[in-house]
Amino acid sequence: MRASVLVEPGRIEIRERAVPTPAPGDVLVQVSSVGVCGSDAHYYREGRIGEFVVEQPIVLGHEASGTIVGVGEGVATDRIGQRVSIEPQRPDPGSDETRRGLYNLCPHMQFYATPPIDGALAEYVTIGAAFAHAVPDEMSDDAAALCEPLSVAIATARKAGLTAGSRVLIAGAGPIGIATAQTALAFGATEVIVSDLDAQRRAVAAKFGATTVLDPREQDVSALRVDAFVDASGAPSAVLAGIGAVRPAGTVVLVGMGSSEMTLPVQTIQNRELILTGVFRYANTWPAAIALARSGRVDLDSMVTGKYPLAEAEQALNADRMPGSLKAVVRVQE
Amino acid sequence: MRASVLVEPGRIEIRERAVPTPAPGDVLVQVSSVGVCGSDAHYYREGRIGEFVVEQPIVLGHEASGTIVGVGEGVATDRIGQRVSIEPQRPDPGSDETRRGLYNLCPHMQFYATPPIDGALAEYVTIGAAFAHAVPDEMSDDAAALCEPLSVAIATARKAGLTAGSRVLIAGAGPIGIATAQTALAFGATEVIVSDLDAQRRAVAAKFGATTVLDPREQDVSALRVDAFVDASGAPSAVLAGIGAVRPAGTVVLVGMGSSEMTLPVQTIQNRELILTGVFRYANTWPAAIALARSGRVDLDSMVTGKYPLAEAEQALNADRMPGSLKAVVRVQE
Amino acid sequence: MRASVLVEPGRIEIRERAVPTPAPGDVLVQVSSVGVCGSDAHYYREGRIGEFVVEQPIVLGHEASGTIVGVGEGVATDRIGQRVSIEPQRPDPGSDETRRGLYNLCPHMQFYATPPIDGALAEYVTIGAAFAHAVPDEMSDDAAALCEPLSVAIATARKAGLTAGSRVLIAGAGPIGIATAQTALAFGATEVIVSDLDAQRRAVAAKFGATTVLDPREQDVSALRVDAFVDASGAPSAVLAGIGAVRPAGTVVLVGMGSSEMTLPVQTIQNRELILTGVFRYANTWPAAIALARSGRVDLDSMVTGKYPLAEAEQALNADRMPGSLKAVVRVQE
Amino acid sequence: MRASVLVEPGRIEIRERAVPTPAPGDVLVQVSSVGVCGSDAHYYREGRIGEFVVEQPIVLGHEASGTIVGVGEGVATDRIGQRVSIEPQRPDPGSDETRRGLYNLCPHMQFYATPPIDGALAEYVTIGAAFAHAVPDEMSDDAAALCEPLSVAIATARKAGLTAGSRVLIAGAGPIGIATAQTALAFGATEVIVSDLDAQRRAVAAKFGATTVLDPREQDVSALRVDAFVDASGAPSAVLAGIGAVRPAGTVVLVGMGSSEMTLPVQTIQNRELILTGVFRYANTWPAAIALARSGRVDLDSMVTGKYPLAEAEQALNADRMPGSLKAVVRVQE
Repeated sequence: MRASVLVEPGRIEIRERAVPTPAPGDVLVQVSSVGVCGSDAHYYREGRIGEFVVEQPIVLGHEASGTIVGVGEGVATDRIGQRVSIEPQRPDPGSDETRRGLYNLCPHMQFYATPPIDGALAEYVTIGAAFAHAVPDEMSDDAAALCEPLSVAIATARKAGLTAGSRVLIAGAGPIGIATAQTALAFGATEVIVSDLDAQRRAVAAKFGATTVLDPREQDVSALRVDAFVDASGAPSAVLAGIGAVRPAGTVVLVGMGSSEMTLPVQTIQNRELILTGVFRYANTWPAAIALARSGRVDLDSMVTGKYPLAEAEQALNADRMPGSLKAVVRVQE
Repeated sequence: MRASVLVEPGRIEIRERAVPTPAPGDVLVQVSSVGVCGSDAHYYREGRIGEFVVEQPIVLGHEASGTIVGVGEGVATDRIGQRVSIEPQRPDPGSDETRRGLYNLCPHMQFYATPPIDGALAEYVTIGAAFAHAVPDEMSDDAAALCEPLSVAIATARKAGLTAGSRVLIAGAGPIGIATAQTALAFGATEVIVSDLDAQRRAVAAKFGATTVLDPREQDVSALRVDAFVDASGAPSAVLAGIGAVRPAGTVVLVGMGSSEMTLPVQTIQNRELILTGVFRYANTWPAAIALARSGRVDLDSMVTGKYPLAEAEQALNADRMPGSLKAVVRVQE
Repeated sequence: MRASVLVEPGRIEIRERAVPTPAPGDVLVQVSSVGVCGSDAHYYREGRIGEFVVEQPIVLGHEASGTIVGVGEGVATDRIGQRVSIEPQRPDPGSDETRRGLYNLCPHMQFYATPPIDGALAEYVTIGAAFAHAVPDEMSDDAAALCEPLSVAIATARKAGLTAGSRVLIAGAGPIGIATAQTALAFGATEVIVSDLDAQRRAVAAKFGATTVLDPREQDVSALRVDAFVDASGAPSAVLAGIGAVRPAGTVVLVGMGSSEMTLPVQTIQNRELILTGVFRYANTWPAAIALARSGRVDLDSMVTGKYPLAEAEQALNADRMPGSLKAVVRVQE
Repeated sequence: MRASVLVEPGRIEIRERAVPTPAPGDVLVQVSSVGVCGSDAHYYREGRIGEFVVEQPIVLGHEASGTIVGVGEGVATDRIGQRVSIEPQRPDPGSDETRRGLYNLCPHMQFYATPPIDGALAEYVTIGAAFAHAVPDEMSDDAAALCEPLSVAIATARKAGLTAGSRVLIAGAGPIGIATAQTALAFGATEVIVSDLDAQRRAVAAKFGATTVLDPREQDVSALRVDAFVDASGAPSAVLAGIGAVRPAGTVVLVGMGSSEMTLPVQTIQNRELILTGVFRYANTWPAAIALARSGRVDLDSMVTGKYPLAEAEQALNADRMPGSLKAVVRVQE
């Protein structure tokens, strides 16, 4: 099979690899669509994210959909032919975290495209049968792939405690910010305020349903009064301003990746008893993701701004530098 | 002022009464619209609900909107002129329940139209300033009044744990069932199944957005698999069937009033660790109710099927016996 | 190896069986102590519990401790020699319930001594490596076995929401009632009221720390005002009275097994917004169980009122009919 | 009456003041014991805490007990003679926060000894009737006063999610650290690790039940693995190290007051999905505080290391500078 391989930082090659054999409990998936994530681009350019370092050639891509074409021992053969959205993680079922339902925090996690585990920019991949989620016919391959970033947004909305009537401020109108804005609306939020420095990106946020968009240089974000603040920017200034906008006992969720340390207004956190936390991937989100996408509550297809064949995976990884790009997908079989 | 008074079971009279004086902390509201609730009709016909007995003439009505026309000591005079939705309860701020935020469960509650406390079917009423919730101009008087049943639905959705992607079964397509169905959608539920014996009521549920409607005599409700079951019917057979439809660790919320005791499938509750609870009015729902109504997530105006002047309050109380009736309102000033 | 086999209702035989081979991910445990549960006695006498029917010879016993003597593929060999408390369940790691951390509710569960799965009254058993919990040297074999009923009590205390200062009523002073009373104290409850018809059992409850014991025929249980009521009796009258004792927004937890249906005071549940649920086994309780036993917060050894060799397993199963019996254990290797 | 008045930073005078008259809903309390808090000493020395500035003479002290000697309108006269522990806050019953049960976060709060509100270092004070909590005869005046810092500890334990079997790290063995350690044990924590730079303070922590005490300069705190970290030190280095000790999905509670901003390891918070929050006073803690003190779960009397008459209030405010001092109390009537 063909696979798009990051052979060293900044260099992608299409290589021939053996089609993997599904282990017991796994399924073999013929990949259809793979979304490109900021972390893929970061590995591609920098060769590392924090403590995770690319030390050998690796296949990137962890937002994937496809069709089951084979099953390992113990998996019902009637799954063959099923179109699926891939949840790209392999937790250890015996860890404390997995047992408690927090499998995203499993210390023995093997996650697609996180060194040294290969990802999905290849013609075939394997995954645990329970992590290949059947999708309905009416969902496109791209939407099925984008259930992954939608899952990040769902995990964020849950941690933010969003519900009917919530007011939420989201900093950053990139793919995660836009997915979170849509998801906030799907959770019933009635005020979804998106801040971004870039006017084009603010316009995109408004198009996807943000009830207010603002430029934080022109408006005093701290004067807002929201139930929750979600940082999808990773920018310290955005985090500082956003925390100041949260009502007493409200929540602050950090989903954007920034520096390892940040100066935070702890007195505000204490005096308002804010709850600050972060999102690290997701657990138990796929059923909701599929339900939201299928019902039209969230529009994933419109988030796709660029489509590439596998041979052009490198261009897809660079698409985030093009103005107006929101989400590039690689159509692996095209 | 004129007030509609239940002088004895089955007999309503319009009587002259003194306009009340707002006590310290209260506001005086000129009433505009009052919705008729099943409990009003029950008091009207039977003279009692459980342990609450009508022993002296009483003004019915607890779903009310109006305009503030006076304020008691300690209330800012700039509230005069404000259009408000009335939250018809007066809890004791010092009770354990109120202190914990569960003021609807306050043992010293004084609630509109619950004997011996007068309700809102009168030209003027008083209420605590914090229980007169300002409504935006674009919300009609009727919608402002119906924030009350919407609050019951919001309290129900919260107890049911509804969120994005939830599947919920609602038994009973009366006003509370319809409000709950709309609210479930606003909370992000993607499957909202309404069961009712009456085809016309099922059609109404479908019109208000139920994704499935069913006749429980023709479909095996227990074969469903939902995250939550809400009983808005009070019918023991509906409760039994509904409980059987709930997935492990799901919720059962009883909001319909039925008999004081009911035979329940405790082994199912135990083996699936279902969480069964009830809704008794509401607490901290008005901001969400107004936000949902204002944003169009919930359509209250379309629920109004009959409008009556104060002089015809008795007809309004009997409107629930008319086919197709969902919610009657009394336009007090007309 | 020798195993105690229920060959038909009312007849136990010691039979020779092959020592099991640990499957991949499993450990082989040489059993030391096995507690006898009411459900074991029920299968022994009646041959069924609800829908679970003994249709072929079965080994009873699911409260077990022992020493790891072998490991299956993928399990570290340094576990051999470890003393362990067995969590007697094998959930499917791929089910929705297991993924969400509610593995006790997994529909594909294989549980010790629940037909047709064999239990622990045998010289050797196998279990998943993560379900064999290491115990400290200072914990006895019996205490390690009784982490199982303690886990039921911990699951109960969690669902009851017990915390520092809680007031709890427990109906029934059998093994689960006593374990729950001890656990309630360990969770910080400061009022632990145990009701039982039997004076000797009430005395046992008092010995284990109940702050009040009472005879429900002599005291009006409904006049109490508790935060939580735990039924460990299965008696409808106890459940009815207990529910009446719970403060608004309090909890009712059914852990005792009784009839499949029960008449409940739904109006009380609704008007007080009580939360009623049941306990079905447990999930994620062993670390807490071991910590509580090790720290002396809960005394498991003193609960043992009878010790039997494997050859006398039948007497152990009948021990619950002896006055003063609380918990019989089978010392398998003696 | 006599009152101890901070007339300017660093100067306390005993002055004659009029005995206050209880307003409607209030009680008049003859003060018996007042604990001295670090915040009192801070106002005394610096004249301010953050945005709260002493701009006129103020009576300090907010940890108080006494006897009801008068009641305002609407309060039952049978409360006269009752010994009480004072919860020193007056929230606005109509604020959103109060209505939701989070009255400590009420923006219109009037809190004892927070400028410009007078505190309890006087012979008589008034407080809302529901904030004067009856204490049992067996509880000393000092213990009744110290229900206030115990309430801080209870609020902390709740936010930390402490329960049976929890492992908690507490930085700082001052009064709040010691109260939190005791409270953690009362909540069922089985590992209570206290870190402090001072050996004498560590010894005090051990005396009050800490299962481990450590010097953070000698032991690598980050190598611990706890469920919760409580900072009662306000020291940035302690916060940094403590956060590193928390298991995935664990909690971090900041109760110690430090600088307004602090550099935090946000990547750790994100990657482990830690929940970080702060404690600002307390709500709904007094019943638990009294229950814990009464039952002996928490020993408040032994925390008192100095007793002063009202005339020596200034010495009491300086007592924290004496080696071995943990908590000074002023016996107002002596």
